[in-house]
Amino acid sequence: MLVVVCLNPAIDVTYRVDSLVLGATHRVAEVCERAGGKGVNAAQVLRQLGEPVVLTGLAGAGWPDAHGFVPVAGPVRRTVTVVADDGAATVFTEPGPTVSVDEWAAFVEAFRSLVKDVVLLSGSLPPGVPADAYAQLTMAAHDAGARVLLDAEGEALRLALPARPDLVKPNADEARPYGPDPLAGLLGTGARNAVVSCGADGSIAALDGRRYRVRLGERVAGNPTGAGDALAAGLARGMAVGAPWPDVLHDATALAAAAVAVSYAGGFDPDVAARLRPLIDVAEG
Amino acid sequence: MLVVVCLNPAIDVTYRVDSLVLGATHRVAEVCERAGGKGVNAAQVLRQLGEPVVLTGLAGAGWPDAHGFVPVAGPVRRTVTVVADDGAATVFTEPGPTVSVDEWAAFVEAFRSLVKDVVLLSGSLPPGVPADAYAQLTMAAHDAGARVLLDAEGEALRLALPARPDLVKPNADEARPYGPDPLAGLLGTGARNAVVSCGADGSIAALDGRRYRVRLGERVAGNPTGAGDALAAGLARGMAVGAPWPDVLHDATALAAAAVAVSYAGGFDPDVAARLRPLIDVAEG
Repeated sequence: MLVVVCLNPAIDVTYRVDSLVLGATHRVAEVCERAGGKGVNAAQVLRQLGEPVVLTGLAGAGWPDAHGFVPVAGPVRRTVTVVADDGAATVFTEPGPTVSVDEWAAFVEAFRSLVKDVVLLSGSLPPGVPADAYAQLTMAAHDAGARVLLDAEGEALRLALPARPDLVKPNADEARPYGPDPLAGLLGTGARNAVVSCGADGSIAALDGRRYRVRLGERVAGNPTGAGDALAAGLARGMAVGAPWPDVLHDATALAAAAVAVSYAGGFDPDVAARLRPLIDVAEG
Repeated sequence: MLVVVCLNPAIDVTYRVDSLVLGATHRVAEVCERAGGKGVNAAQVLRQLGEPVVLTGLAGAGWPDAHGFVPVAGPVRRTVTVVADDGAATVFTEPGPTVSVDEWAAFVEAFRSLVKDVVLLSGSLPPGVPADAYAQLTMAAHDAGARVLLDAEGEALRLALPARPDLVKPNADEARPYGPDPLAGLLGTGARNAVVSCGADGSIAALDGRRYRVRLGERVAGNPTGAGDALAAGLARGMAVGAPWPDVLHDATALAAAAVAVSYAGGFDPDVAARLRPLIDVAEG
Protein backbone atom coordinates (compact mmCIF):
# COMPACT_ATOMS: atom_id res chain seq x y z
CA MET A 1 0.00 0.00 0.00
CA LEU A 2 1.10 3.53 -0.78
CA VAL A 3 0.75 6.34 1.73
CA VAL A 4 1.10 9.89 0.42
CA VAL A 5 1.71 12.72 2.88
CA CYS A 6 0.80 16.30 1.97
CA LEU A 7 1.48 18.55 4.96
CA ASN A 8 0.66 21.78 3.16
CA PRO A 9 -2.19 21.18 0.72
CA ALA A 10 -3.48 24.17 -1.22
CA ILE A 11 -6.48 25.26 -3.16
CA ASP A 12 -4.90 26.07 -6.50
CA VAL A 13 -6.72 29.00 -8.08
CA THR A 14 -6.13 30.01 -11.68
CA TYR A 15 -7.04 33.50 -12.90
CA ARG A 16 -7.24 34.08 -16.63
CA VAL A 17 -6.64 37.72 -17.62
CA ASP A 18 -6.12 39.43 -20.97
CA SER A 19 -2.79 40.86 -19.99
CA LEU A 20 -0.90 41.23 -16.72
CA VAL A 21 0.18 44.81 -16.07
CA LEU A 22 2.16 45.75 -12.96
CA GLY A 23 0.29 48.29 -10.83
CA ALA A 24 -3.01 47.83 -12.69
CA THR A 25 -6.42 46.46 -11.65
CA HIS A 26 -7.48 43.33 -13.56
CA ARG A 27 -11.00 42.02 -13.85
CA VAL A 28 -10.52 38.28 -13.89
CA ALA A 29 -12.45 36.75 -16.78
CA GLU A 30 -12.33 33.16 -15.53
CA VAL A 31 -11.61 31.60 -12.12
CA CYS A 32 -10.76 27.90 -11.76
CA GLU A 33 -10.21 26.20 -8.41
CA ARG A 34 -8.66 22.78 -7.85
CA ALA A 35 -7.37 20.89 -4.85
CA GLY A 36 -3.57 20.92 -5.03
CA GLY A 37 -0.28 20.75 -3.26
CA LYS A 38 2.51 18.43 -4.40
CA GLY A 39 1.36 15.41 -2.41
CA VAL A 40 -2.24 15.83 -3.51
CA ASN A 41 -1.13 16.05 -7.15
CA ALA A 42 0.95 12.87 -6.80
CA ALA A 43 -1.94 11.03 -5.12
CA GLN A 44 -4.25 12.05 -7.98
CA VAL A 45 -1.78 10.64 -10.52
CA LEU A 46 -1.59 7.38 -8.54
CA ARG A 47 -5.38 7.16 -8.39
CA GLN A 48 -5.58 7.78 -12.14
CA LEU A 49 -3.18 4.81 -12.48
CA GLY A 50 -5.65 2.72 -10.44
CA GLU A 51 -3.23 2.45 -7.53
CA PRO A 52 -4.79 2.26 -4.03
CA VAL A 53 -3.50 5.28 -2.12
CA VAL A 54 -3.96 6.62 1.38
CA LEU A 55 -3.65 10.40 1.21
CA THR A 56 -3.03 12.13 4.51
CA GLY A 57 -1.64 15.39 5.82
CA LEU A 58 -2.67 18.53 7.64
CA ALA A 59 -5.80 20.27 6.38
CA GLY A 60 -6.62 23.88 7.19
CA ALA A 61 -10.21 25.08 7.42
CA GLY A 62 -11.88 25.14 4.01
CA TRP A 63 -10.02 22.14 2.60
CA PRO A 64 -12.61 20.48 0.35
CA ASP A 65 -11.91 16.83 1.16
CA ALA A 66 -10.67 16.57 4.74
CA HIS A 67 -11.14 12.78 4.92
CA GLY A 68 -7.88 11.22 6.10
CA PHE A 69 -6.34 14.58 7.01
CA VAL A 70 -5.61 15.87 10.49
CA PRO A 71 -7.44 19.18 10.93
CA VAL A 72 -5.63 22.49 11.51
CA ALA A 73 -7.52 25.48 12.91
CA GLY A 74 -6.14 28.08 10.46
CA PRO A 75 -7.52 28.48 6.95
CA VAL A 76 -6.24 26.29 4.13
CA ARG A 77 -3.69 28.06 1.95
CA ARG A 78 -4.30 29.07 -1.62
CA THR A 79 -2.03 29.47 -4.57
CA VAL A 80 -3.00 31.95 -7.26
CA THR A 81 -1.71 31.44 -10.79
CA VAL A 82 -2.36 34.36 -13.13
CA VAL A 83 -2.40 33.22 -16.73
CA ALA A 84 -2.31 36.07 -19.25
CA ASP A 85 -3.40 35.48 -22.82
CA ASP A 86 -0.17 37.15 -23.91
CA GLY A 87 2.38 35.69 -21.52
CA ALA A 88 3.63 33.16 -19.04
CA ALA A 89 2.01 32.20 -15.74
CA THR A 90 2.74 34.34 -12.68
CA VAL A 91 2.27 32.44 -9.42
CA PHE A 92 1.64 33.49 -5.82
CA THR A 93 1.85 30.85 -3.09
CA GLU A 94 0.52 31.51 0.40
CA PRO A 95 2.63 30.09 3.25
CA GLY A 96 -0.24 28.08 4.79
CA PRO A 97 -1.87 28.06 8.23
CA THR A 98 0.34 28.02 11.31
CA VAL A 99 0.25 24.51 12.78
CA SER A 100 0.23 24.19 16.57
CA VAL A 101 2.42 21.80 18.53
CA ASP A 102 -0.66 19.73 19.38
CA GLU A 103 -1.82 19.57 15.75
CA TRP A 104 1.63 18.37 14.66
CA ALA A 105 1.71 15.76 17.45
CA ALA A 106 -1.75 14.56 16.36
CA PHE A 107 -0.50 14.18 12.80
CA VAL A 108 2.61 12.19 13.80
CA GLU A 109 0.37 9.91 15.87
CA ALA A 110 -2.02 9.40 12.95
CA PHE A 111 0.91 8.79 10.60
CA ARG A 112 2.40 6.10 12.86
CA SER A 113 -0.92 4.25 12.90
CA LEU A 114 -1.25 4.01 9.10
CA VAL A 115 2.28 3.99 7.67
CA LYS A 116 3.05 0.81 5.69
CA ASP A 117 5.10 -0.41 2.71
CA VAL A 118 5.99 2.80 0.85
CA VAL A 119 5.45 6.42 1.91
CA LEU A 120 5.74 9.47 -0.31
CA LEU A 121 6.51 12.62 1.70
CA SER A 122 5.94 15.54 -0.60
CA GLY A 123 6.03 19.31 -0.63
CA SER A 124 6.65 22.28 1.61
CA LEU A 125 6.10 22.50 5.36
CA PRO A 126 3.46 24.91 6.71
CA PRO A 127 4.52 27.40 9.40
CA GLY A 128 4.68 25.87 12.86
CA VAL A 129 5.67 22.40 11.72
CA PRO A 130 9.21 21.56 12.93
CA ALA A 131 11.89 22.11 10.31
CA ASP A 132 12.99 18.48 10.70
CA ALA A 133 9.43 17.19 10.16
CA TYR A 134 10.49 14.93 7.30
CA ALA A 135 13.30 13.46 9.42
CA GLN A 136 10.75 12.65 12.13
CA LEU A 137 8.36 11.05 9.62
CA THR A 138 11.17 9.13 7.90
CA MET A 139 12.23 7.66 11.23
CA ALA A 140 8.63 6.79 12.11
CA ALA A 141 8.23 5.08 8.72
CA HIS A 142 11.45 3.11 9.16
CA ASP A 143 10.31 2.08 12.65
CA ALA A 144 7.24 0.59 10.97
CA GLY A 145 9.33 -1.16 8.31
CA ALA A 146 8.20 1.18 5.54
CA ARG A 147 10.38 2.79 2.86
CA VAL A 148 10.32 6.54 2.22
CA LEU A 149 10.38 8.55 -0.99
CA LEU A 150 11.00 12.19 -0.12
CA ASP A 151 10.11 14.98 -2.56
CA ALA A 152 11.15 18.19 -0.82
CA GLU A 153 13.61 21.01 -1.17
CA GLY A 154 15.65 23.45 0.87
CA GLU A 155 15.85 23.03 4.61
CA ALA A 156 13.02 20.46 4.71
CA LEU A 157 15.13 18.20 2.46
CA ARG A 158 18.48 18.99 4.07
CA LEU A 159 17.32 18.24 7.62
CA ALA A 160 15.64 14.99 6.52
CA LEU A 161 18.75 13.45 4.94
CA PRO A 162 20.35 12.29 8.22
CA ALA A 163 17.25 10.09 8.75
CA ARG A 164 18.28 8.23 5.57
CA PRO A 165 15.24 8.43 3.29
CA ASP A 166 15.20 5.53 0.82
CA LEU A 167 14.87 7.79 -2.22
CA VAL A 168 14.96 11.57 -2.73
CA LYS A 169 14.02 13.28 -5.98
CA PRO A 170 14.88 16.99 -6.07
CA ASN A 171 15.02 18.77 -9.41
CA ALA A 172 18.28 20.22 -10.67
CA ASP A 173 17.65 23.60 -9.01
CA GLU A 174 16.76 22.01 -5.69
CA ALA A 175 19.81 19.72 -5.88
CA ARG A 176 22.27 22.56 -6.60
CA PRO A 177 23.29 22.95 -2.91
CA TYR A 178 24.64 19.38 -3.07
CA GLY A 179 27.51 20.32 -5.36
CA PRO A 180 28.60 19.72 -8.96
CA ASP A 181 27.77 16.00 -8.63
CA PRO A 182 24.45 16.34 -6.80
CA LEU A 183 23.82 12.58 -6.71
CA ALA A 184 27.07 12.07 -4.82
CA GLY A 185 26.24 15.02 -2.58
CA LEU A 186 22.80 13.69 -1.72
CA LEU A 187 24.06 10.16 -1.07
CA GLY A 188 26.98 11.55 0.93
CA THR A 189 24.64 13.40 3.27
CA GLY A 190 22.28 10.51 3.93
CA ALA A 191 19.98 9.70 1.02
CA ARG A 192 20.04 5.97 0.21
CA ASN A 193 19.09 6.62 -3.42
CA ALA A 194 18.52 9.75 -5.49
CA VAL A 195 16.90 10.89 -8.73
CA VAL A 196 17.57 14.44 -9.91
CA SER A 197 15.09 15.61 -12.53
CA CYS A 198 16.20 18.08 -15.18
CA GLY A 199 12.92 19.04 -16.87
CA ALA A 200 12.89 18.37 -20.60
CA ASP A 201 16.47 17.08 -20.33
CA GLY A 202 15.30 14.01 -18.44
CA SER A 203 17.01 13.00 -15.22
CA ILE A 204 20.02 11.43 -13.59
CA ALA A 205 19.81 8.80 -10.88
CA ALA A 206 21.89 6.86 -8.37
CA LEU A 207 20.02 3.69 -7.40
CA ASP A 208 21.34 0.68 -5.51
CA GLY A 209 24.93 1.60 -6.34
CA ARG A 210 24.35 2.20 -10.07
CA ARG A 211 24.17 5.46 -12.01
CA TYR A 212 21.58 6.12 -14.71
CA ARG A 213 21.03 8.83 -17.30
CA VAL A 214 17.42 9.15 -18.53
CA ARG A 215 16.65 10.98 -21.77
CA LEU A 216 13.21 11.77 -23.21
CA GLY A 217 12.86 10.87 -26.87
CA GLU A 218 10.56 13.80 -27.53
CA ARG A 219 9.87 17.21 -26.06
CA VAL A 220 6.24 17.58 -24.87
CA ALA A 221 4.59 21.00 -25.08
CA GLY A 222 2.24 22.05 -22.30
CA ASN A 223 2.15 22.80 -18.61
CA PRO A 224 5.22 21.56 -16.69
CA THR A 225 3.58 22.25 -13.29
CA GLY A 226 2.90 18.88 -11.75
CA ALA A 227 5.39 16.96 -13.90
CA GLY A 228 7.64 16.50 -10.86
CA ASP A 229 4.69 15.21 -8.85
CA ALA A 230 3.88 12.69 -11.58
CA LEU A 231 7.54 11.59 -11.56
CA ALA A 232 7.31 11.11 -7.79
CA ALA A 233 4.08 9.13 -8.22
CA GLY A 234 5.75 6.86 -10.76
CA LEU A 235 8.81 6.32 -8.58
CA ALA A 236 6.66 5.58 -5.51
CA ARG A 237 4.60 3.08 -7.44
CA GLY A 238 7.77 1.41 -8.74
CA MET A 239 9.11 1.12 -5.21
CA ALA A 240 5.82 -0.37 -4.03
CA VAL A 241 5.65 -3.05 -6.73
CA GLY A 242 9.39 -3.75 -6.53
CA ALA A 243 10.11 -3.34 -10.23
CA PRO A 244 13.74 -3.15 -11.47
CA TRP A 245 15.03 0.42 -11.34
CA PRO A 246 15.45 0.86 -15.13
CA ASP A 247 11.77 -0.07 -15.59
CA VAL A 248 10.76 2.27 -12.79
CA LEU A 249 12.68 5.13 -14.44
CA HIS A 250 11.04 4.36 -17.80
CA ASP A 251 7.54 4.36 -16.32
CA ALA A 252 7.99 7.36 -14.06
CA THR A 253 9.58 9.45 -16.82
CA ALA A 254 6.76 8.62 -19.23
CA LEU A 255 4.26 9.68 -16.56
CA ALA A 256 6.06 12.97 -15.94
CA ALA A 257 6.15 13.77 -19.66
CA ALA A 258 2.47 12.80 -20.00
CA ALA A 259 1.66 15.14 -17.09
CA VAL A 260 3.01 18.06 -19.15
CA ALA A 261 0.39 17.26 -21.78
CA VAL A 262 -2.53 18.11 -19.45
CA SER A 263 -3.35 21.67 -18.47
CA TYR A 264 -3.56 21.05 -14.70
CA ALA A 265 -1.28 19.53 -12.08
CA GLY A 266 -2.40 16.16 -10.73
CA GLY A 267 -3.12 14.19 -13.88
CA PHE A 268 -1.56 12.81 -17.06
CA ASP A 269 -2.53 11.93 -20.59
CA PRO A 270 -2.39 8.10 -20.79
CA ASP A 271 -2.08 8.11 -24.58
CA VAL A 272 0.95 10.38 -24.40
CA ALA A 273 2.46 8.16 -21.69
CA ALA A 274 1.99 5.05 -23.83
CA ARG A 275 3.42 6.73 -26.93
CA LEU A 276 6.47 8.19 -25.15
CA ARG A 277 7.48 5.21 -23.01
CA PRO A 278 9.35 3.34 -25.79
CA LEU A 279 11.11 6.56 -26.87
CA ILE A 280 12.66 7.09 -23.43
CA ASP A 281 16.29 6.07 -23.09
CA VAL A 282 17.60 4.83 -19.74
CA ALA A 283 21.38 4.36 -19.91
CA GLU A 284 23.56 3.05 -17.14
CA GLY A 285 26.80 4.79 -16.22
CA MET B 1 -32.26 54.83 8.88
CA LEU B 2 -29.61 54.03 6.28
CA VAL B 3 -29.74 50.89 4.19
CA VAL B 4 -26.55 49.93 2.33
CA VAL B 5 -26.77 47.38 -0.48
CA CYS B 6 -23.70 45.40 -1.52
CA LEU B 7 -24.69 42.91 -4.22
CA ASN B 8 -21.16 41.67 -4.85
CA PRO B 9 -19.22 41.60 -1.56
CA ALA B 10 -15.69 40.28 -1.65
CA ILE B 11 -13.06 38.90 0.62
CA ASP B 12 -10.23 41.33 -0.01
CA VAL B 13 -6.93 39.50 0.22
CA THR B 14 -3.62 41.34 0.30
CA TYR B 15 -0.36 39.58 -0.58
CA ARG B 16 2.89 41.24 0.40
CA VAL B 17 5.83 40.20 -1.80
CA ASP B 18 9.38 41.49 -2.15
CA SER B 19 9.02 42.23 -5.80
CA LEU B 20 6.45 41.36 -8.46
CA VAL B 21 8.03 39.74 -11.52
CA LEU B 22 5.93 38.71 -14.51
CA GLY B 23 6.17 34.97 -15.16
CA ALA B 24 7.81 34.20 -11.80
CA THR B 25 6.66 32.22 -8.73
CA HIS B 26 6.32 34.33 -5.58
CA ARG B 27 6.26 33.00 -2.04
CA VAL B 28 3.88 35.37 -0.29
CA ALA B 29 5.45 36.62 2.93
CA GLU B 30 2.23 37.93 4.48
CA VAL B 31 -1.46 37.32 3.75
CA CYS B 32 -4.17 39.65 5.08
CA GLU B 33 -7.89 39.04 4.58
CA ARG B 34 -10.68 41.54 5.14
CA ALA B 35 -14.37 41.68 4.28
CA GLY B 36 -14.77 44.12 1.42
CA GLY B 37 -16.75 45.25 -1.55
CA LYS B 38 -17.75 48.89 -2.07
CA GLY B 39 -21.00 48.72 -0.08
CA VAL B 40 -19.34 46.85 2.78
CA ASN B 41 -16.58 49.47 2.91
CA ALA B 42 -19.14 52.30 2.99
CA ALA B 43 -21.14 50.56 5.74
CA GLN B 44 -17.96 50.16 7.80
CA VAL B 45 -17.27 53.91 7.49
CA LEU B 46 -20.85 54.68 8.56
CA ARG B 47 -20.52 52.35 11.55
CA GLN B 48 -17.23 54.01 12.51
CA LEU B 49 -19.21 57.29 12.45
CA GLY B 50 -21.70 55.74 14.88
CA GLU B 51 -24.45 55.76 12.28
CA PRO B 52 -27.03 52.91 12.51
CA VAL B 53 -26.80 51.00 9.23
CA VAL B 54 -28.58 48.02 7.76
CA LEU B 55 -26.15 46.25 5.45
CA THR B 56 -27.69 43.84 2.99
CA GLY B 57 -26.86 42.20 -0.30
CA LEU B 58 -26.13 38.84 -1.82
CA ALA B 59 -23.61 36.64 -0.03
CA GLY B 60 -21.86 33.71 -1.66
CA ALA B 61 -20.74 30.70 0.35
CA GLY B 62 -17.85 31.56 2.66
CA TRP B 63 -18.92 35.14 3.33
CA PRO B 64 -17.82 35.70 6.95
CA ASP B 65 -20.83 37.65 8.22
CA ALA B 66 -23.91 36.55 6.31
CA HIS B 67 -26.37 38.21 8.73
CA GLY B 68 -28.74 40.43 6.75
CA PHE B 69 -27.57 39.04 3.41
CA VAL B 70 -29.55 36.83 1.05
CA PRO B 71 -27.53 33.65 0.45
CA VAL B 72 -26.18 32.65 -2.97
CA ALA B 73 -25.11 29.07 -3.63
CA GLY B 74 -21.82 29.90 -5.39
CA PRO B 75 -18.64 30.81 -3.49
CA VAL B 76 -18.06 34.39 -2.38
CA ARG B 77 -15.67 36.24 -4.66
CA ARG B 78 -12.20 37.32 -3.66
CA THR B 79 -10.03 40.18 -4.73
CA VAL B 80 -6.27 39.76 -4.55
CA THR B 81 -4.07 42.82 -4.16
CA VAL B 82 -0.36 42.15 -4.58
CA VAL B 83 1.69 44.78 -2.81
CA ALA B 84 5.39 44.71 -3.69
CA ASP B 85 7.92 46.36 -1.43
CA ASP B 86 9.34 48.05 -4.50
CA GLY B 87 6.22 49.09 -6.40
CA ALA B 88 2.54 49.85 -6.69
CA ALA B 89 -0.35 47.53 -5.91
CA THR B 90 -1.48 45.09 -8.62
CA VAL B 91 -5.09 44.00 -8.20
CA PHE B 92 -7.10 40.99 -9.43
CA THR B 93 -10.87 41.02 -8.94
CA GLU B 94 -12.96 37.87 -9.35
CA PRO B 95 -16.33 38.33 -11.05
CA GLY B 96 -18.35 36.78 -8.20
CA PRO B 97 -20.76 33.84 -7.99
CA THR B 98 -23.47 33.49 -10.59
CA VAL B 99 -26.77 34.51 -9.02
CA SER B 100 -29.87 32.52 -9.98
CA VAL B 101 -33.20 34.06 -10.92
CA ASP B 102 -34.68 32.78 -7.64
CA GLU B 103 -31.82 34.20 -5.57
CA TRP B 104 -32.27 37.61 -7.21
CA ALA B 105 -36.04 37.49 -6.64
CA ALA B 106 -35.43 36.61 -2.98
CA PHE B 107 -33.14 39.61 -2.63
CA VAL B 108 -35.61 42.04 -4.21
CA GLU B 109 -38.28 40.72 -1.85
CA ALA B 110 -36.02 41.17 1.17
CA PHE B 111 -35.02 44.65 -0.02
CA ARG B 112 -38.67 45.74 -0.33
CA SER B 113 -39.34 44.66 3.23
CA LEU B 114 -36.53 46.72 4.78
CA VAL B 115 -36.00 49.74 2.52
CA LYS B 116 -36.58 53.07 4.31
CA ASP B 117 -35.37 56.69 4.36
CA VAL B 118 -32.05 56.56 2.43
CA VAL B 119 -30.54 53.67 0.49
CA LEU B 120 -26.97 53.46 -0.76
CA LEU B 121 -26.66 51.09 -3.74
CA SER B 122 -22.98 50.46 -4.23
CA GLY B 123 -20.62 48.50 -6.43
CA SER B 124 -20.57 46.01 -9.26
CA LEU B 125 -23.22 43.43 -10.10
CA PRO B 126 -22.36 39.73 -9.85
CA PRO B 127 -23.01 37.49 -12.87
CA GLY B 128 -26.66 36.47 -13.22
CA VAL B 129 -28.11 39.61 -11.66
CA PRO B 130 -30.11 41.58 -14.27
CA ALA B 131 -28.13 44.44 -15.85
CA ASP B 132 -30.87 46.87 -14.77
CA ALA B 133 -30.73 45.66 -11.16
CA TYR B 134 -30.12 49.15 -9.82
CA ALA B 135 -33.07 50.50 -11.80
CA GLN B 136 -35.27 47.81 -10.21
CA LEU B 137 -33.99 48.62 -6.71
CA THR B 138 -34.30 52.38 -7.26
CA MET B 139 -37.94 51.95 -8.28
CA ALA B 140 -38.60 49.69 -5.28
CA ALA B 141 -37.00 52.27 -2.97
CA HIS B 142 -39.06 55.09 -4.47
CA ASP B 143 -42.22 52.98 -4.10
CA ALA B 144 -41.38 52.82 -0.37
CA GLY B 145 -40.76 56.58 -0.18
CA ALA B 146 -37.00 56.17 0.22
CA ARG B 147 -34.28 58.15 -1.54
CA VAL B 148 -31.44 56.47 -3.41
CA LEU B 149 -27.72 57.23 -3.61
CA LEU B 150 -26.21 55.15 -6.39
CA ASP B 151 -22.47 54.46 -6.53
CA ALA B 152 -21.97 52.39 -9.66
CA GLU B 153 -20.31 52.60 -13.03
CA GLY B 154 -20.66 51.40 -16.60
CA GLU B 155 -23.81 49.63 -17.67
CA ALA B 156 -25.06 49.22 -14.07
CA LEU B 157 -25.07 53.02 -13.73
CA ARG B 158 -26.32 53.76 -17.24
CA LEU B 159 -29.32 51.42 -17.01
CA ALA B 160 -30.26 52.78 -13.57
CA LEU B 161 -30.48 56.43 -14.60
CA PRO B 162 -33.97 56.21 -16.20
CA ALA B 163 -35.27 55.17 -12.74
CA ARG B 164 -34.15 58.61 -11.49
CA PRO B 165 -31.80 57.88 -8.57
CA ASP B 166 -31.73 60.83 -6.17
CA LEU B 167 -27.94 61.12 -6.24
CA VAL B 168 -25.21 59.44 -8.28
CA LYS B 169 -21.50 59.76 -7.53
CA PRO B 170 -19.25 58.36 -10.24
CA ASN B 171 -15.60 59.35 -10.33
CA ALA B 172 -14.22 61.31 -13.26
CA ASP B 173 -13.29 58.16 -15.20
CA GLU B 174 -16.68 56.58 -14.64
CA ALA B 175 -18.45 59.84 -15.64
CA ARG B 176 -16.50 60.22 -18.89
CA PRO B 177 -19.23 58.57 -21.05
CA TYR B 178 -21.55 61.43 -20.02
CA GLY B 179 -19.64 64.00 -22.05
CA PRO B 180 -17.43 67.03 -21.45
CA ASP B 181 -19.87 68.34 -18.81
CA PRO B 182 -20.56 65.05 -17.03
CA LEU B 183 -22.87 66.63 -14.44
CA ALA B 184 -25.13 67.89 -17.23
CA GLY B 185 -24.88 64.51 -18.96
CA LEU B 186 -25.85 62.59 -15.81
CA LEU B 187 -28.74 64.93 -15.01
CA GLY B 188 -29.85 64.86 -18.65
CA THR B 189 -30.12 61.07 -18.60
CA GLY B 190 -32.09 60.78 -15.35
CA ALA B 191 -30.00 61.45 -12.22
CA ARG B 192 -31.72 63.95 -9.94
CA ASN B 193 -28.39 65.06 -8.44
CA ALA B 194 -24.77 64.20 -9.13
CA VAL B 195 -21.33 64.41 -7.55
CA VAL B 196 -18.30 63.57 -9.70
CA SER B 197 -15.18 62.88 -7.65
CA CYS B 198 -11.77 63.72 -9.08
CA GLY B 199 -9.38 62.11 -6.59
CA ALA B 200 -6.93 64.56 -5.05
CA ASP B 201 -8.48 67.34 -7.16
CA GLY B 202 -11.69 67.20 -5.09
CA SER B 203 -15.04 66.99 -6.84
CA ILE B 204 -17.74 68.81 -8.77
CA ALA B 205 -21.43 68.56 -7.95
CA ALA B 206 -24.87 69.49 -9.23
CA LEU B 207 -27.32 69.47 -6.31
CA ASP B 208 -30.85 70.88 -6.20
CA GLY B 209 -30.15 73.06 -9.23
CA ARG B 210 -26.85 74.49 -7.98
CA ARG B 211 -23.31 73.73 -9.09
CA TYR B 212 -20.43 73.27 -6.63
CA ARG B 213 -16.65 72.93 -6.92
CA VAL B 214 -14.97 71.19 -3.97
CA ARG B 215 -11.23 71.53 -3.39
CA LEU B 216 -9.12 69.79 -0.75
CA GLY B 217 -6.82 72.12 1.14
CA GLU B 218 -4.14 69.49 1.45
CA ARG B 219 -3.03 66.37 -0.37
CA VAL B 220 -3.16 63.25 1.82
CA ALA B 221 -0.60 60.50 1.24
CA GLY B 222 -1.72 56.90 1.60
CA ASN B 223 -4.07 54.35 0.12
CA PRO B 224 -6.78 55.85 -2.14
CA THR B 225 -8.70 52.53 -2.32
CA GLY B 226 -11.90 53.04 -0.35
CA ALA B 227 -11.83 56.86 -0.54
CA GLY B 228 -14.78 56.80 -2.93
CA ASP B 229 -16.68 54.51 -0.58
CA ALA B 230 -16.04 56.91 2.31
CA LEU B 231 -17.29 59.77 0.11
CA ALA B 232 -20.46 57.78 -0.59
CA ALA B 233 -20.87 57.07 3.12
CA GLY B 234 -20.57 60.77 3.90
CA LEU B 235 -23.07 61.73 1.18
CA ALA B 236 -25.56 59.06 2.31
CA ARG B 237 -25.31 60.23 5.89
CA GLY B 238 -25.85 63.84 4.80
CA MET B 239 -28.95 62.83 2.82
CA ALA B 240 -30.27 60.91 5.83
CA VAL B 241 -29.85 63.77 8.31
CA GLY B 242 -31.03 66.38 5.77
CA ALA B 243 -28.03 68.68 6.14
CA PRO B 244 -27.54 71.55 3.64
CA TRP B 245 -25.58 70.35 0.58
CA PRO B 246 -22.46 72.50 1.18
CA ASP B 247 -22.14 71.01 4.67
CA VAL B 248 -22.66 67.51 3.27
CA LEU B 249 -19.91 68.11 0.69
CA HIS B 250 -17.56 69.39 3.40
CA ASP B 251 -18.15 66.38 5.65
CA ALA B 252 -18.08 63.75 2.91
CA THR B 253 -14.90 65.17 1.36
CA ALA B 254 -13.15 65.22 4.73
CA LEU B 255 -14.15 61.59 5.24
CA ALA B 256 -12.84 60.60 1.82
CA ALA B 257 -9.50 62.31 2.45
CA ALA B 258 -9.29 60.74 5.91
CA ALA B 259 -9.94 57.32 4.33
CA VAL B 260 -6.74 57.75 2.28
CA ALA B 261 -4.83 58.05 5.55
CA VAL B 262 -5.65 54.46 6.61
CA SER B 263 -4.05 51.45 4.94
CA TYR B 264 -7.30 49.54 4.29
CA ALA B 265 -10.61 50.29 2.58
CA GLY B 266 -13.59 50.65 4.93
CA GLY B 267 -12.29 53.05 7.55
CA PHE B 268 -10.94 56.57 8.09
CA ASP B 269 -8.63 58.43 10.43
CA PRO B 270 -10.90 60.70 12.55
CA ASP B 271 -8.03 63.03 13.46
CA VAL B 272 -7.22 63.58 9.80
CA ALA B 273 -10.92 64.20 9.06
CA ALA B 274 -11.16 66.79 11.83
CA ARG B 275 -7.96 68.53 10.73
CA LEU B 276 -8.87 68.63 7.02
CA ARG B 277 -12.52 69.66 7.28
CA PRO B 278 -11.83 73.41 7.75
CA LEU B 279 -9.26 73.35 4.92
CA ILE B 280 -11.79 72.10 2.37
CA ASP B 281 -13.24 74.73 0.05
CA VAL B 282 -16.78 74.34 -1.29
CA ALA B 283 -17.50 77.04 -3.87
CA GLU B 284 -20.79 77.52 -5.68
CA GLY B 285 -20.91 78.11 -9.39
